[in-house]
Amino acid sequence: MATTKIGIIGLGLMGGSLSIALKKTTDFFYITGLDHNKKHCEKALELGLVNEISETLEEISHCDIIILTIPVDGIIATSKMFKNLNPKCTIIDFGSTKEKISNSIPKEIRENFVTAHPMTGTEKFGPSAAISDLYTDKTVVLCDLEKSGEHQQNVAKKLFSDIKMHLVFMHAKEHDRHAAFISHMPHAVSYAIANAVMKQEGSTSIVALAAGGFKDMSRIAKSSPNMWEDIFRQNKSNVMEAISSFQSELSKCQNMVENEEWGKLNSWMEEANRLHDILD
Amino acid sequence: MATTKIGIIGLGLMGGSLSIALKKTTDFFYITGLDHNKKHCEKALELGLVNEISETLEEISHCDIIILTIPVDGIIATSKMFKNLNPKCTIIDFGSTKEKISNSIPKEIRENFVTAHPMTGTEKFGPSAAISDLYTDKTVVLCDLEKSGEHQQNVAKKLFSDIKMHLVFMHAKEHDRHAAFISHMPHAVSYAIANAVMKQEGSTSIVALAAGGFKDMSRIAKSSPNMWEDIFRQNKSNVMEAISSFQSELSKCQNMVENEEWGKLNSWMEEANRLHDILD
Repeated sequence: MATTKIGIIGLGLMGGSLSIALKKTTDFFYITGLDHNKKHCEKALELGLVNEISETLEEISHCDIIILTIPVDGIIATSKMFKNLNPKCTIIDFGSTKEKISNSIPKEIRENFVTAHPMTGTEKFGPSAAISDLYTDKTVVLCDLEKSGEHQQNVAKKLFSDIKMHLVFMHAKEHDRHAAFISHMPHAVSYAIANAVMKQEGSTSIVALAAGGFKDMSRIAKSSPNMWEDIFRQNKSNVMEAISSFQSELSKCQNMVENEEWGKLNSWMEEANRLHDILD
Repeated sequence: MATTKIGIIGLGLMGGSLSIALKKTTDFFYITGLDHNKKHCEKALELGLVNEISETLEEISHCDIIILTIPVDGIIATSKMFKNLNPKCTIIDFGSTKEKISNSIPKEIRENFVTAHPMTGTEKFGPSAAISDLYTDKTVVLCDLEKSGEHQQNVAKKLFSDIKMHLVFMHAKEHDRHAAFISHMPHAVSYAIANAVMKQEGSTSIVALAAGGFKDMSRIAKSSPNMWEDIFRQNKSNVMEAISSFQSELSKCQNMVENEEWGKLNSWMEEANRLHDILD
């Protein structure tokens, strides 16, 4: 079987874990990595996540498949720098917001591009955070797939199926709204919980009492500020809407406690219980 | 070694898991259970969580140690119903708020009482939810311990140490404020996240995208409305304060996104990252 040349731009949790996942499939890959962070390059080589490090985008451009696991701003900037791409080349970006990316890709390479969002991650980052089952049994959203070439559509579908992901197809605009509710707003909330507790007098003794609930609610407050600054910027209007919807629910709770409307509060919590009929 | 007679009032997650934990120690226990829910009584017997079921508080009163694993309102009501207690009897309540309990126990039996809060739980409830390691390596807060008799202090300390909990001592008032931040506010937030998402058009397709972050942030929205109604009622003023502190942090985030103050937002998220220097 021929070896597929893969270029991974961004050697962090997502890119590193993809490399491990690809190596578990039956295909053969030669992986070239690129990252502006020299330490990440060295670590990725040391961990065997890449076969070689490339210094230039020009070298990566000759790969069969190029994966962009960098922040959204970087994806948009990089998409404008590709020159003389092979028409069969498939570029897949893993950005967390999709509409701006989908609309920013230069026309000449729009068919080369597949814009995807694997709905997975951990709060950790960097190549050392890479794990073998990050993608297994998780959902990947493929956005505006009709804008990609037929060859590129097939390459992307095969790649995500091979690493055992569930494929979901959606318009980029719809994806961004959904992602604001299911991921971006909860991150803002988790950061706010962490900061609210840290501001309290005796925060160390407060945190000493933390049980599983608090640990869950504050885990994603560990996430990378650079990555999340970028996401909040790219998806501003949806994020604002999702935070407002959340705040209006929390205000209801606050008012019911304030006014001691316990029966009403009980029903409101029962409604929330129902989420788990569709989630679990 | 003599057999210690234990009475457990409230045969749910906490009471059931305590029974399992006690049986793993080297002491011998005979456990009598009491619960107003007949099905819970039958299930607890079937699962071997109790040796027998008692129909009356009078029977339970003869136990050496009585554990109250019922909502706070029930603890206060029950504390007023004990008659002719043996001076050596130790009653330990596991209520989630402590000040009202500590102040409501009748004077005649105040020394019999130890008011404790094991900082552990899951979102599940009922005797079938009982698990063997619910208490292992978790923290228990013993409140206003100087108000308990010396014998009772020792019995409680031994019991919690035997099931491998870490003992922390605190005034009930301080506990309630801390618990509002570390547990009660995060529960209100989780219920609000669940309800905000459920209210959206296409909530089922939104939830289909849920990854680990959302699952963590909404897990405790599964918790029992009856239990949480009671906690919010008992700890109203602290809960209101904790929700306000959280909301002021979230408003900051909202304003920074609205005004596109990305550098400031980045620093705010970096501050939140620091929680994990003291939490992990």
